[in-house]
Amino acid sequence: MLMGKQPISMSTTPPRRPIQSPVQSIVQELYDRFKTNDSGDVATYIPELGKANPDWFAICVVTADGAVYEVGDVGQTFTIQSISKPFTYGVALEDNGKENVLKKIWMEPSGEAFNSISLQPGTGRPLNPMINAGAIATTGLVEGKTSTQKMHRILDAFSRFAGRKLEVDQEVYRSESETGHRNRAIAYMLRNFDILTEDPTPALEAYFQQCSILVNCRDLAFMGATLANGGVNPQSGQRAVAGIYVENMLSVMSTCGMYDAAGEWIYDVGLPAKSGVAGGVLAVLPGQLSIAVFSPRLDSHGNSVRGIEVCRELSRRCGLHLFRANHPARSVVRSTASVGEVGSKRMRSATEHSYLRENGGRARLITLQGELGFAAAESAVRHTLIEAEKADYIVLDFRQVQSVSMEAIFLMHGLAKNLRSVGKRLLICGARGMQRQMEKIFQRGTDTSAPPLVEFVTDRDLVLEQLEGELLDQAGIRNHSFVLYAVEDCEMLAELNADQHAVLAPRFRHVRHAAGDIIVRAGDTDRSIHFVLQGKADAVIELPGGAMHRVATFGSGMCFGEMSLLDASPRSATVVACGDMLCASLSEVDFDYLQNEHPAILVNILRNVAKMLSARLRRANQEIRATQSQ
Amino acid sequence: MLMGKQPISMSTTPPRRPIQSPVQSIVQELYDRFKTNDSGDVATYIPELGKANPDWFAICVVTADGAVYEVGDVGQTFTIQSISKPFTYGVALEDNGKENVLKKIWMEPSGEAFNSISLQPGTGRPLNPMINAGAIATTGLVEGKTSTQKMHRILDAFSRFAGRKLEVDQEVYRSESETGHRNRAIAYMLRNFDILTEDPTPALEAYFQQCSILVNCRDLAFMGATLANGGVNPQSGQRAVAGIYVENMLSVMSTCGMYDAAGEWIYDVGLPAKSGVAGGVLAVLPGQLSIAVFSPRLDSHGNSVRGIEVCRELSRRCGLHLFRANHPARSVVRSTASVGEVGSKRMRSATEHSYLRENGGRARLITLQGELGFAAAESAVRHTLIEAEKADYIVLDFRQVQSVSMEAIFLMHGLAKNLRSVGKRLLICGARGMQRQMEKIFQRGTDTSAPPLVEFVTDRDLVLEQLEGELLDQAGIRNHSFVLYAVEDCEMLAELNADQHAVLAPRFRHVRHAAGDIIVRAGDTDRSIHFVLQGKADAVIELPGGAMHRVATFGSGMCFGEMSLLDASPRSATVVACGDMLCASLSEVDFDYLQNEHPAILVNILRNVAKMLSARLRRANQEIRATQSQ
Repeated sequence: MLMGKQPISMSTTPPRRPIQSPVQSIVQELYDRFKTNDSGDVATYIPELGKANPDWFAICVVTADGAVYEVGDVGQTFTIQSISKPFTYGVALEDNGKENVLKKIWMEPSGEAFNSISLQPGTGRPLNPMINAGAIATTGLVEGKTSTQKMHRILDAFSRFAGRKLEVDQEVYRSESETGHRNRAIAYMLRNFDILTEDPTPALEAYFQQCSILVNCRDLAFMGATLANGGVNPQSGQRAVAGIYVENMLSVMSTCGMYDAAGEWIYDVGLPAKSGVAGGVLAVLPGQLSIAVFSPRLDSHGNSVRGIEVCRELSRRCGLHLFRANHPARSVVRSTASVGEVGSKRMRSATEHSYLRENGGRARLITLQGELGFAAAESAVRHTLIEAEKADYIVLDFRQVQSVSMEAIFLMHGLAKNLRSVGKRLLICGARGMQRQMEKIFQRGTDTSAPPLVEFVTDRDLVLEQLEGELLDQAGIRNHSFVLYAVEDCEMLAELNADQHAVLAPRFRHVRHAAGDIIVRAGDTDRSIHFVLQGKADAVIELPGGAMHRVATFGSGMCFGEMSLLDASPRSATVVACGDMLCASLSEVDFDYLQNEHPAILVNILRNVAKMLSARLRRANQEIRATQSQ
Repeated sequence: MLMGKQPISMSTTPPRRPIQSPVQSIVQELYDRFKTNDSGDVATYIPELGKANPDWFAICVVTADGAVYEVGDVGQTFTIQSISKPFTYGVALEDNGKENVLKKIWMEPSGEAFNSISLQPGTGRPLNPMINAGAIATTGLVEGKTSTQKMHRILDAFSRFAGRKLEVDQEVYRSESETGHRNRAIAYMLRNFDILTEDPTPALEAYFQQCSILVNCRDLAFMGATLANGGVNPQSGQRAVAGIYVENMLSVMSTCGMYDAAGEWIYDVGLPAKSGVAGGVLAVLPGQLSIAVFSPRLDSHGNSVRGIEVCRELSRRCGLHLFRANHPARSVVRSTASVGEVGSKRMRSATEHSYLRENGGRARLITLQGELGFAAAESAVRHTLIEAEKADYIVLDFRQVQSVSMEAIFLMHGLAKNLRSVGKRLLICGARGMQRQMEKIFQRGTDTSAPPLVEFVTDRDLVLEQLEGELLDQAGIRNHSFVLYAVEDCEMLAELNADQHAVLAPRFRHVRHAAGDIIVRAGDTDRSIHFVLQGKADAVIELPGGAMHRVATFGSGMCFGEMSLLDASPRSATVVACGDMLCASLSEVDFDYLQNEHPAILVNILRNVAKMLSARLRRANQEIRATQSQ
């Protein structure tokens, strides 16, 4: 039953604590559930790791837009260890480019444990950057001659990923360096194969330091969320790595991140991930979120026992598997409407309205939304082509588009060319920062004397007004602001007879205005009505920030200020002349005179006002309908 | 410059051929470019494959919603060969469940060639279902004792994937069976380890037949698009495999699909894929599209040379890498508005409007859109919690939501519980088919005598009207249809003085109506105005399909039919009494009388009409603004 009486006390004051999120509840539940699992052992290969409290436990989920859900010892620091590997790999890619990195380190899963040497026979190239050999070679590729220089670069990048300044735990570093015989052997083996081309010590020492960077669970989660967000930290907005390398970093995490069980991990959990022997685990769902877990007890593979369990269970409960289809293309077209349905703010006469209602379909407005990657752009282009079959003008409204990929721009470019080739025009409005990106590509290799393939317009309303104007022009319906109207032709005075016009004529005051003249000022209590005989004027309101926002435009034959006929409220908008104008005005005194001496004239005028309002209301409701459905 | 004069001839008649899509151009370009690559050799291990024309070449891209872009020999049939493996794996998963399948076939990449035996030491379990050993074991798991029964099941499933009835090439099958000594050896080895528990012949023969199923490039692309679309063929709408198994099928394609170069393929191309020795290659981008290529010349790994090139280049050019982030959560909230901004179709008095404008924020309407997976639902829940801090009622509008995952429902359930716990109410409107799914979960384990956690409402407008009513009730503002109004209290007659009311009083005709009575009929030219003194009435229009659509509701104190005061147009809507009603009416004759004898009264009434229209227009414009921005 709808809205039945319910025994609920409605509080009208907001509760003091924020209402709990169900996502927080999930994280809390998993924490409570796995807290009792104390299997596994803390790593002890260096004494510092052995000092960890085995009961430490933290879970932190951060979304790609920076929302945080966390529980447990999220502030407790620990060393990042192998979770550093994909991030340093990103640094090496930025410093050397993909080609050069791949010459030194391949990207096939080794099917072996993390400390396997796994060099390719012949070349000596490490099989991938997630095993120690590959990671040391990666650190060797980081800019800098000395380990200090390399670490400066690495710490700087990692700090941007985490969103706070990170540091090295010097104790752990010294301990790693003192006991790292196997890694030292690997480094010299890499030197032997010319994978490291100089003294391996700087690379090796930087590697030990990079593994000893102190992070807490929240830091890790933000590092992952930065990957999920295409390389930009969602909290600070800072870019941590070039977007093109994020795919590579996630690829090696997905195929080589969980050592000898990559197939099982992807099958079961379905998230690129990386773990470290200090007890951290990080998993990333691109575009969506990251999961970080910290619990120092490790299984026989060297992965955090609780960390693995939490990732597996979160993926299962929240349906986070990478291959869960989501369809970015499904909702890219927000609405489509003809210019007849969605009108501009330019006030139109009944004749104009009726023409546009019939023929507005020749210009179609398609509102897009979300992120335009390839698949979404394909869908948008496909819809556009269908609309273009029946239209001559297409306006793509980008105001709700959040980003446009290079590939989507190429598709838009192709669309523009193909529309041009059949004599149709494409306009894009509201593209903001994306416009420059698009223009650069659209202009490539084109004859600069030719008209641009796409016309970019900032304001959606202006383009609608212009298209309405073109359609009316082509039909020979006069709508030009430079036409001189007679007072008799004004819509608000329609159906007055000659005698009535004769009564009114001497009462009009004709006033000329120049561009920028304020004819009516918001807040004023003056109550004149102005008929536009020539030129046009904008009604603007001041937005809270102080910016002026156009709400309507009046051209020849229209009137403004008619609300003063209805009540005594102050002016709701300021009206400014757009250029030279001629207006005819009637004042409150004139209307009082009409009310007393010629009420029939006033009745007629009020009827016209109500008709105008009623037509505008019909159009507004039509626009609501047109933009709510697809 | 905006809309400058351009030397373009605008054709107003649609061109005969559809306008070319830029996506089609990309596919065509790749076809032209790789057509000249004639490296590699046609497979010859059985004579039938050797008969293939080495120049055959086709590319077909099908999107997750079924759009097709294709070029070349797309209708040329060939045998599916190993591309059958992931699809038969899906059948086996459906027939046995994941647990039972994993007991027989593991899912780690073997790092070896397709015909490697790769059984796990000890268990004899094949390493994964993409090598022949695993594929034969998979076919053994398909329902059916005999090879005929198994093939019936497999052909039926494959045909649903492809969207047309597929058949086996008997020549190829016989040839495969006659020369398949190695596979026969594998089958007996599987029997030896009890992976196949009975005579291996039916599994083996069905395997040979499954590899000999004839497909063309378009079939393959639709099979892939069905995976991209979560298991449902986007053209036929038929489900080919249970959605939960799609992840597993794509997982084994991604880690084991391209044999010994899984890491490189994911790094470089980033798409789960599978190839066959007859020259087919299929790659899938979940949720977005599939790419099928057919070209019989193979490289040394047994993969189609052109097939690999086209996939690599398409992925690069179109940015199709799996780890390219797209953010499903970013655009899930279409708009948020208060009930004061987005009103119901119930006509309200100025007092009511003004109260709702001030206090409508206590009820917030959040319009969602797209697909609600976990991340999108998290974002929606987060927005809702922020709104709920300042509101007592939350309406989630699901009309533009296309699907809701189980995990999203759990989040919604948690949201509902948490809102309830702080005394706030959650309503969901327009959930259509999703409602039953949600209700089932919401009701689990709850006390059936307790009020439901979420109130589901079909019609968005009805819930808005009810919430407006509750807010007004709580404020003690009378808005009940059962209240008896005096004619003097009607808004349209406001500001008339006692003398004027005295003039009007004898002219009213009071009429009682019962539920269903038609008071005004669309198309009629009668011109009375009706004032509602008690009860309420709906204005409805007939939609093109014949369905009746409510456009407004009038309660006590409102009037309808006032447009007849303005012009002579016929009635635009039918008005039906919702229950017992009392109306007071004035006819055209009465208005003529007023115009002649008491024009001041008419002026007053027309002012009120215009004020009402103006208020409604303001609200409509407010709604347009509220629903256009987020």
